[in-house]
Amino acid sequence: MSFTDSTHLKHSKTDVLVVGAGPSGLMAAQALGRLGIDVTVIERRGIGEAYGNADGLVPRSMEIWQTYGMLDPFDAKGGARMVGLVTYETSPSDGRLVRSRPKSNVVVSSRYPYELTGATEFIEGTLRKNADDADVKFVQPAWPIAIDVRETDDEFPVKVSLLIFCVAKASKATLTNGTSKYGCYCTGEQSLEIISAKYVIGADGAYSWIRRTLNINMEGEQTEDVWGVVDVHLKTDFPDIRFKCVIQAASGPLIIIPREEDKIRIYIAMSTSDKIPLRDDGRVDKTAFDPKEMLQKILQHARERFSPFNVEFTEVFWSTIFATAQKVASTFSYRTKVFITGDACHTHSPKAGQGANASMGDAHNLAWKVAYAVRGWASPSLLNTYEEERRPYAQALISFDKEISKTLEENRPAEEYQKMLHKQNMFGSGIGINYASSVLTATTKSYGIVVPGERFPFAPIIRIADWRPYDAHDLLPSDGKFKLIILSGDVFDPKAKVALNDFAAAYHNAVHARGSEALDEFWGLPVRLSVYVVAHNAKEDILWTEIPTALAESWTSCFTTHGPIPGVPGGNLYEKFGMADSSSPGAAVLVRPDGHVSMITGLESENADKILSFIYNL
Amino acid sequence: MSFTDSTHLKHSKTDVLVVGAGPSGLMAAQALGRLGIDVTVIERRGIGEAYGNADGLVPRSMEIWQTYGMLDPFDAKGGARMVGLVTYETSPSDGRLVRSRPKSNVVVSSRYPYELTGATEFIEGTLRKNADDADVKFVQPAWPIAIDVRETDDEFPVKVSLLIFCVAKASKATLTNGTSKYGCYCTGEQSLEIISAKYVIGADGAYSWIRRTLNINMEGEQTEDVWGVVDVHLKTDFPDIRFKCVIQAASGPLIIIPREEDKIRIYIAMSTSDKIPLRDDGRVDKTAFDPKEMLQKILQHARERFSPFNVEFTEVFWSTIFATAQKVASTFSYRTKVFITGDACHTHSPKAGQGANASMGDAHNLAWKVAYAVRGWASPSLLNTYEEERRPYAQALISFDKEISKTLEENRPAEEYQKMLHKQNMFGSGIGINYASSVLTATTKSYGIVVPGERFPFAPIIRIADWRPYDAHDLLPSDGKFKLIILSGDVFDPKAKVALNDFAAAYHNAVHARGSEALDEFWGLPVRLSVYVVAHNAKEDILWTEIPTALAESWTSCFTTHGPIPGVPGGNLYEKFGMADSSSPGAAVLVRPDGHVSMITGLESENADKILSFIYNL
Ligand SMILES: Cc1cc2nc3c(=O)[nH]c(=O)nc-3n(C[C@H](O)[C@H](O)[C@H](O)COP(=O)(O)OP(=O)(O)OC[C@H]3O[C@@H](n4cnc5c(N)ncnc54)[C@H](O)[C@@H]3O)c2cc1C
Ligand SMILES: Cc1cc2nc3c(=O)[nH]c(=O)nc-3n(C[C@H](O)[C@H](O)[C@H](O)COP(=O)(O)OP(=O)(O)OC[C@H]3O[C@@H](n4cnc5c(N)ncnc54)[C@H](O)[C@@H]3O)c2cc1C
Repeated sequence: MSFTDSTHLKHSKTDVLVVGAGPSGLMAAQALGRLGIDVTVIERRGIGEAYGNADGLVPRSMEIWQTYGMLDPFDAKGGARMVGLVTYETSPSDGRLVRSRPKSNVVVSSRYPYELTGATEFIEGTLRKNADDADVKFVQPAWPIAIDVRETDDEFPVKVSLLIFCVAKASKATLTNGTSKYGCYCTGEQSLEIISAKYVIGADGAYSWIRRTLNINMEGEQTEDVWGVVDVHLKTDFPDIRFKCVIQAASGPLIIIPREEDKIRIYIAMSTSDKIPLRDDGRVDKTAFDPKEMLQKILQHARERFSPFNVEFTEVFWSTIFATAQKVASTFSYRTKVFITGDACHTHSPKAGQGANASMGDAHNLAWKVAYAVRGWASPSLLNTYEEERRPYAQALISFDKEISKTLEENRPAEEYQKMLHKQNMFGSGIGINYASSVLTATTKSYGIVVPGERFPFAPIIRIADWRPYDAHDLLPSDGKFKLIILSGDVFDPKAKVALNDFAAAYHNAVHARGSEALDEFWGLPVRLSVYVVAHNAKEDILWTEIPTALAESWTSCFTTHGPIPGVPGGNLYEKFGMADSSSPGAAVLVRPDGHVSMITGLESENADKILSFIYNL
Repeated sequence: MSFTDSTHLKHSKTDVLVVGAGPSGLMAAQALGRLGIDVTVIERRGIGEAYGNADGLVPRSMEIWQTYGMLDPFDAKGGARMVGLVTYETSPSDGRLVRSRPKSNVVVSSRYPYELTGATEFIEGTLRKNADDADVKFVQPAWPIAIDVRETDDEFPVKVSLLIFCVAKASKATLTNGTSKYGCYCTGEQSLEIISAKYVIGADGAYSWIRRTLNINMEGEQTEDVWGVVDVHLKTDFPDIRFKCVIQAASGPLIIIPREEDKIRIYIAMSTSDKIPLRDDGRVDKTAFDPKEMLQKILQHARERFSPFNVEFTEVFWSTIFATAQKVASTFSYRTKVFITGDACHTHSPKAGQGANASMGDAHNLAWKVAYAVRGWASPSLLNTYEEERRPYAQALISFDKEISKTLEENRPAEEYQKMLHKQNMFGSGIGINYASSVLTATTKSYGIVVPGERFPFAPIIRIADWRPYDAHDLLPSDGKFKLIILSGDVFDPKAKVALNDFAAAYHNAVHARGSEALDEFWGLPVRLSVYVVAHNAKEDILWTEIPTALAESWTSCFTTHGPIPGVPGGNLYEKFGMADSSSPGAAVLVRPDGHVSMITGLESENADKILSFIYNL
């Protein structure tokens, strides 16, 4: 059936249209959905059609997943924790492989000191479940064929025309319009729909249609080097298949990534003698070789690099071969109505295991800002911070990716890989990210090691009323609210107590002065802000009833510091803020909905109104 | 409609019939169901009809729940952790309440150093979900009207006649046969069914029909004292509503049990001046007073005992008043075909919070034995160990209950309650349980603090291949298998290595000598036994490939000791076994399917066959 035959035009509206249901698009969709925003996702794959290559969460991604309630299910259902790192080097004297003692794979201080790997389907499935639970609408298989961004007062200024397919199992779609051979399964029936949206998020991958159609350029270089990758079951006498493992064999590097259950992913740097043909756009020309032969080549390289250990591949689940660009888009947004995220705006080699993590990080940074804009709570300058914050990060990531690629490809000593790892951990984990000054940074002065622009530190704390242990990060769910964390100091210190009470009174007045704008219709509670108090007293001494009720509606929001606890990562919250001394005055820390610090200030009464003004003037 | 009118007789068969779906019956049903045994539960309540009074899991119950995969869901869905204990005493000088500093509520060493509370519906709901997932059949509302235990070679020797009701929402059942006013909702239609079972478990509560019908006596005394209990929401300036809290007010004790969300349970010892009427059987005569008035009396007592703190009850969810017997059944089984568990064979006051825990402990002890018997793997002497082990425990619990009751009722200093707590923790937590010598104890010699008959100790361990941290208890899922834990010692020590290899070879031979009896049809793996090795080496030094494959099929079963870790409870496994010295010879520990130790022995080759013979001759 031809395209024009079956066309009938439908119109619909959505607050936010997300194009692409990879890690980045799903992350954005579920985040917005959870905030009650009306979201539609279009995806060219059929439902359940596997795709994508990501296979792991780095520490900061785990922290972010935890704020959406996705980490525990993923971990419990079999995500493999990649705790240790082993390297093998070829001995210069006799050419044999020399094993290093295993080391920790994650070397930055993190609540989750490992990486967590799993199949893409599994990662995407977890994100998808959250999106489904939040009533996100999915239209698939479908893709955009036109986009129009109006500069009028239209409430839904972005019009996207979609081609929608009807799914059936047997027939593969062969489209009539030349370019679009996406290989989805469909009945051949097509329909056309125009969706009008307030905002569009283009999360449609490295070959982003949104980016190309809006004429946004990618800046950077194409690498020449080509990698093969296989997901396998194997039998071997090689002992380190459950660690991240880098073998620097004479013929080139091999990287092992343990996966869920008994699965293992192996990356192989292909050698120039393999003569892998590249297309003009720098990608591997897959039409120029037989994939079965290529797989045999990859496995052959693997066997050689494992030698003298034996390896027998009992099952190959998936394999591909790729060359990557190290590029960043010239801009991440279009008229502050369309945003691009993930591989659509930055690509790098998979060696650092960063792609999906950076992509989800983009979405996490962007989602709440778009939600604020949809609700009319934000000026365009808030939306601009997405590019201001994420583009420099993407650029830094690329520089780092180049370094790590060099280390691997030049076959340099494994020790250098270890040093790289340190950087990777800081970068890739996202833990080292510091967003530069913007409308979102209200103060710039650091307290201790805590810097505005960085994510709020993690540290063990304990709930006063029932001694249930928490981490400070548990106070920061991704619920779209700013969080005001009051570090009250020692509540029995007369000066601290007066300061706390005065601040509480000022806060109460500041909230109520704003009236309905600031308060929830039903409960009379602040809508954009949650307040928690973390005192600095021994848990045995303090009562939660010591905390003024203006700052603590109930026992559930009163905590005290609880560290350092040997064996529990995180140290002590007050130490991190440089306030371990019991005579330190208190502080108020305003944390953004994405967990980064906006403001750190003293408990002087006038700051209560400053904090609220800041939030309500974004 | 009269009984005889609608009767039509049906016959069916089941391996195990469980009567009663309270904590004990559900625990047994889900345990058996998970082992692939065909189980039918009959329950007189309608589906979803709430009942029961238990409200918390003690540490050993949490350990047991963990082995069935039920603990994490319960904890995550809002079980309240009762970490701290506070006591208030009346000052002898001025009669005011004096608060103690909060202490830890759980004082024995446990993997879960707190109690976990939640509504009965929530506890039973979690058990029920496991039972449903394991395809356990439920017939309800239904109850037995006759039981016949044949002493023939009949494969299904127990015949139980049931009365089954059809559920409807509106009409309350009013039965014609005198005694049976169970208040279930039904259409009035009844049917009669005869179920033939290999074994019957009577888990039908304190007024057990099974126990009475089989003429099993309860031995012990009725207490005179009466307690009121209310589940409430409240507003108060009393600071300790989220701890377990005992107030020894002048007019008598009050106990606070924090519950899920904002709920609180309050126990009140009624005073003799309340003149609560008791029936001849010692239970409260609820026909003799107006329940509304009684509730007001309970709340009034509560307000007085909270004074000088204010308390306003904003919602009362549930309330009851009760007197309890402290009794143990003269026998726990009938012809080793019918077993009684839980309140059906022991009752005690709720003050120690033990009833449901002891009841679930019974079921956990019994279920795997019945499963072995159904599969033809066990002689009656294995089934006899149920009574041999659980009856002395119930008796000890009663003695302890008397002590604690006295302490509370005589209004003795709170310090004494704290001492009691220690005992409660040992007893109630089940952690102090030591099953005396029986066919299930193959050796009696202790190693370090580990004693055959006690539950296997918990301790942090780490998986060699991927450094994922575990607890030794994670090796002991309730999968019906015995576990052989090999403490290999230092695998690089030449003597230890030889011993380990020799033992591995002997074990391999012993298993294969048994042939099909010992091996799984499909996988050729032992069916009644899982083997794990826990070495005593630094995780950085050891490779899992050092462990002989006869003892470790894959990397998933090789561990090394990993403690003590500050902040992680459990100490060091080798220290607990008195083998911390690196020159200690290894040991093999045989653990029963319910987690108790059967045998501790050296790694001499001949022990491999001894271990298997022990299991296969039960
Ligand atoms: C071999 C390999 C290994 C990798 N390993 C890792 C790793 O270990 N860790 C890591 O973090 N990253 C890894 N990456 C990178 C990672 O796969 C990507 O960075 C990540 O998938 C990007 O997510 P995304 O959502 O931005 O884009 P994608 O995952 O590419 O998702 C884009 C989605 O949009 C859809 N789409 C595309 N065009 C259209 C259209 N026109 N209309 C509708 N839908 C469209 C696609 O079907 C797809 O579902 C690896 C990449 C490769 C190639
Ligand atoms: C006020 C109060 C507070 C308590 N608090 C605690 C506590 O905090 N912690 C704790 O551990 N324990 C507590 N207990 C004790 C606890 O409730 C019991 O020990 C526990 O419920 C016993 O479990 P069970 O399964 O043996 O019996 P039950 O819970 O009594 O269950 C028996 C089941 O059998 C069904 N049944 C009865 N007769 C028949 C029949 N003829 N046919 C079919 N079905 C039948 C009943 O409907 C019921 O569902 C408390 C008890 C009381 C009274």
